[in-house]
Amino acid sequence: MFRQVETPRLILDRAVLQRNADRFLARAAAADVVLRPHLKTAKSIAVAKVATGGRMSTVTVSTLKEAERFAAAGFDDILYAVGISPNKLSRVQRISDETGKRILVVTDNRPMAEAMAAFSRDTGFRLQVLLEIDSGEGRGGLPPRSPELVEIGRSLAEAPGLDFRGVITHAGHSYAVADPAAIADIAEAERRSATDAAVALRDAGIACEIVSVGSTPTFLHARSFEGVTEARCGVYAFFDLAQLSRNVCAVEDIALTVLASVIGHNRKAGTILIDAGALALSKDVSANTFMSDAHYGHVCDPLTMQRLGELSVAVVHQEHGSIPVEDPIWFERLPIGSLVRILPNHACMTAAAGYESYLVVDGDRITAEWDRFNGW
Amino acid sequence: MFRQVETPRLILDRAVLQRNADRFLARAAAADVVLRPHLKTAKSIAVAKVATGGRMSTVTVSTLKEAERFAAAGFDDILYAVGISPNKLSRVQRISDETGKRILVVTDNRPMAEAMAAFSRDTGFRLQVLLEIDSGEGRGGLPPRSPELVEIGRSLAEAPGLDFRGVITHAGHSYAVADPAAIADIAEAERRSATDAAVALRDAGIACEIVSVGSTPTFLHARSFEGVTEARCGVYAFFDLAQLSRNVCAVEDIALTVLASVIGHNRKAGTILIDAGALALSKDVSANTFMSDAHYGHVCDPLTMQRLGELSVAVVHQEHGSIPVEDPIWFERLPIGSLVRILPNHACMTAAAGYESYLVVDGDRITAEWDRFNGW
Repeated sequence: MFRQVETPRLILDRAVLQRNADRFLARAAAADVVLRPHLKTAKSIAVAKVATGGRMSTVTVSTLKEAERFAAAGFDDILYAVGISPNKLSRVQRISDETGKRILVVTDNRPMAEAMAAFSRDTGFRLQVLLEIDSGEGRGGLPPRSPELVEIGRSLAEAPGLDFRGVITHAGHSYAVADPAAIADIAEAERRSATDAAVALRDAGIACEIVSVGSTPTFLHARSFEGVTEARCGVYAFFDLAQLSRNVCAVEDIALTVLASVIGHNRKAGTILIDAGALALSKDVSANTFMSDAHYGHVCDPLTMQRLGELSVAVVHQEHGSIPVEDPIWFERLPIGSLVRILPNHACMTAAAGYESYLVVDGDRITAEWDRFNGW
Repeated sequence: MFRQVETPRLILDRAVLQRNADRFLARAAAADVVLRPHLKTAKSIAVAKVATGGRMSTVTVSTLKEAERFAAAGFDDILYAVGISPNKLSRVQRISDETGKRILVVTDNRPMAEAMAAFSRDTGFRLQVLLEIDSGEGRGGLPPRSPELVEIGRSLAEAPGLDFRGVITHAGHSYAVADPAAIADIAEAERRSATDAAVALRDAGIACEIVSVGSTPTFLHARSFEGVTEARCGVYAFFDLAQLSRNVCAVEDIALTVLASVIGHNRKAGTILIDAGALALSKDVSANTFMSDAHYGHVCDPLTMQRLGELSVAVVHQEHGSIPVEDPIWFERLPIGSLVRILPNHACMTAAAGYESYLVVDGDRITAEWDRFNGW
């Protein structure tokens, strides 16, 4: 099926993507929360349509370029989930004015709240704002019970040009554990942080419509969503070895792979060289914490998707990947020019390495090419 | 100067780029070798013109997309330096046919030599081929004195449809050392491997016009280029902390930086958050072997380019970078919305992370925007 395909190439299994999307939509429906898919993984209109079940609304993005592209494609209610800076406000307005779509922005600090109030005053554009809560990761966000939370929440709610919409948190520290019970505990802490913050705001008379939590591991293992209105997950659409290593998916759930060609045999060094390296696979090794042989990806047969022995891409240079082989039989099984498919270590980073499209496969046929974009 | 600039943004200092380019062109001229700049770092027509001193010829690329773009822009004599696979030959022909420019390809093995001979026979297209030699890195390439080298060289030279042009090697293992004398020793081994291979081929009656060596460290520290016809270097155009850490450049030679905005203060954790993370900076930590505090880049004042204390980006997520600060004075000196410029750990990877252009600065003014491209 891949004979005419140039490598390296990003391959997306449509059936697996669809199953992952359906499963997460079903779980959200069962939990009575809105799924707000994080499109930073896919950066693709076609994938976003699958992830939203065709709804084309209530999505998360990590860059304003994503917001711009998805809004232009007709998506509405787009949450830009990275803390915003003053030099991005004009673009938020421009995207919203040009497309008529809502962009929600996030902050965790007073200077930015003041900058937004001033921007809205100066331009007449109503920014829609969420406050970021720290649920234990220690990256960004206010503590859920801090007096500052209520103070900033009030200033946002009272600013005439702003629409204060609610709170958002992300339990990024769930990636530090792999035990489902431990992930569930972090999911509960994530939920509590967000709902505590919402309660604190409401107790102070501040409306808090949105209570947004989420990461793929915590969404999947959470015991409760009480008080939560929506969940943000991204990598679940594709999954990867980082998720597999943390017991968040099965290997059959991984929808994204990199097709590569064997370009060299180094019998002396005992390595097979492929044309997928640091750019095609990324240098992310998030999986390796819990899966020491993940390296830069597991090497699979391009058609059956069975892993080839215990082969991994162990060394990467910009455009070269190196696969150590202990048994010389692999030089026969993987001749020069033969193809392999690599299960990515971390799909978000692999896909963002410069690929402009996904080659979509259905069973044993290539059925589509879906655009993706990168950058800011 | 950067007040209206959205972040993250790739900034290129034109004067530094020009000085680096001039210096390497002068060194090549003095050594009587052709400089064949590796454009995998810049992926930019404008930078390539500077790097070739306006000659627009004799360049190196790491992808066929680079070959395609540079050929279309008028560059000739383009060496695709990654071992070629059968599924790329048609594109080489297409690029060459459409632009009339020469593309040189590389292999180190018999099956590919046979595939190329068959391709040329079937299509009538004359492929220009170099043989890759291993000068000690142990990645790809034939040993310089192996019987196989002469056998494959002869088959390439005798194939009616192929033009065998010479040998190529890359001392990638020069990055394992930082002492200039040790780099010079590796440069000498690189030179000897290439010239030994050329001698072996010529002794067997096989013409070997091109003897190509190169990496930025070995080119700079080599004691001799005797017998060498050309040198390939790429990162010297921009330089980075990985080169600085290996005594290959001074900090003033680094032409490439990432402009980022402060988006959060985490006083409890003692960190400043910026909007440049794993994608904007890359997860490459090549510098850290010899510079333990390089992390994901050094943090500088956006205008003076002086490093801010000992600040580095220590943690990255997809779009977040985290800068630990011991002294709370940094929260005052870097308020929300303020700008920093990050010296990249490894420029090739940082630039390739998805940026579509360079913002070019001359002194204290933005004077141009130069396109760059990514992908395959």
